Amino acid sequence: MPVKVFGSPTSAEVARVLACLFEKDVEFQLIRVDSFRGPKRQPNYLKLQPRGEALTFEDGEVTLVESRKILRHIADKYKNQGYKDLFGPGALERASIEQWLQTEAQSFDVPSADMVYSLAYLPSDMPLDGKKANTGGFPSAGMHPAHRQKTEEMLQLFEKSRKELGKLLDIYEQRLDQEEYLAGNKFTLADLSHLPNADRLAADPRSARLIESRKNVSRWWYTISGRDPWKRVKELQRPPSAEAPF
Amino acid sequence: MPVKVFGSPTSAEVARVLACLFEKDVEFQLIRVDSFRGPKRQPNYLKLQPRGEALTFEDGEVTLVESRKILRHIADKYKNQGYKDLFGPGALERASIEQWLQTEAQSFDVPSADMVYSLAYLPSDMPLDGKKANTGGFPSAGMHPAHRQKTEEMLQLFEKSRKELGKLLDIYEQRLDQEEYLAGNKFTLADLSHLPNADRLAADPRSARLIESRKNVSRWWYTISGRDPWKRVKELQRPPSAEAPF
Repeated sequence: MPVKVFGSPTSAEVARVLACLFEKDVEFQLIRVDSFRGPKRQPNYLKLQPRGEALTFEDGEVTLVESRKILRHIADKYKNQGYKDLFGPGALERASIEQWLQTEAQSFDVPSADMVYSLAYLPSDMPLDGKKANTGGFPSAGMHPAHRQKTEEMLQLFEKSRKELGKLLDIYEQRLDQEEYLAGNKFTLADLSHLPNADRLAADPRSARLIESRKNVSRWWYTISGRDPWKRVKELQRPPSAEAPF
Repeated sequence: MPVKVFGSPTSAEVARVLACLFEKDVEFQLIRVDSFRGPKRQPNYLKLQPRGEALTFEDGEVTLVESRKILRHIADKYKNQGYKDLFGPGALERASIEQWLQTEAQSFDVPSADMVYSLAYLPSDMPLDGKKANTGGFPSAGMHPAHRQKTEEMLQLFEKSRKELGKLLDIYEQRLDQEEYLAGNKFTLADLSHLPNADRLAADPRSARLIESRKNVSRWWYTISGRDPWKRVKELQRPPSAEAPF
């Protein structure tokens, strides 16, 4: 019985698991459910759920729903196939991988998802520097009150996530000055786990500068996003998951 | 409970049903299962099943598996929503629609699927005119015997389907000289049912000439394939159904 993944590849949770399955050459079935509601259109930001999207993973008797637990399961159970360094050759490496996996889950995941969510709402020509905008007129001035309130909320969310990510990526920058990858000289689950949200950040110039402005983070992102398994996931993400584009 | 469609939008059977659901603005869920087998690649022609691919349709208590029965069900049950002329306003129109629906099922479906299947196997630079090729050396000369046998089989299948489709499309050409659409002056299920296989014919220059060489058939194809619901189906077909392209 092949491994089964239930979910949409456009979900960060699902994409993380798919990248791992492709890295490990695991045979699997992807079961997606897309909902169509006639010709109605949703604003882009409503299609993004800021945190967590449905994911179920089945492997024989094992059923899991949390993407990083699934990564560990796949890397352990299929350790002798595909790319073999995902979870380190020994306990020492694994401790470092675990540390960075947890950093991703606890400090990178939420602010990066929040930033993507806020940017999907905010028009691309809106100035995002709060202070500068205040001197010349707050960017949401003149809007309908409900729209203005939502815009201000999203500007605050953007600013909060920008600060958090900036501090975090400064630490990454130092780490990646010493090592090629987060957990050492090999690509591991620690790096892989960053792929879905880092890819979303890299896709918008307003957030991509967080990566591009840091030399080592840029080099690391270029390397890990160029791996074939991740390109396969991107290929699966290409179609609209729920709505055709018109 | 929304309508559920189980299957891949790249299947002609499934695509036919999706086109109808979009025409009728029916809310539905599409459940697809894609299988991934690590980095292995399949030849293109093996991905195409010459006839019939898994499709299941559920609408409340109703479960159907044959695409044209599903078209009739959707057009009947949802007659008051979306595009309203799919199944005609009355019994007279419906008789004509039924006649052309049956022509599609009995005379167009198999030879068009056979032609697409054979062309997916045959190299695009292989001469397809049997007689001409025979005088200068049969195109499969010099091949491995198993490959030669398969190639000759596919050349015969191509030639057989080309003759059958040619005769059939001559009838269409006459009909479409008198009427804008197959069943009269409105787009109906009769036309819709042709979309998936006609689209495959149109996608390869070796089969597209069957359409392009006929003035009225060309005009009809241009009109029906330009409808928004069909473009939405094409959008869903865009990703590789089972294998990423590397």
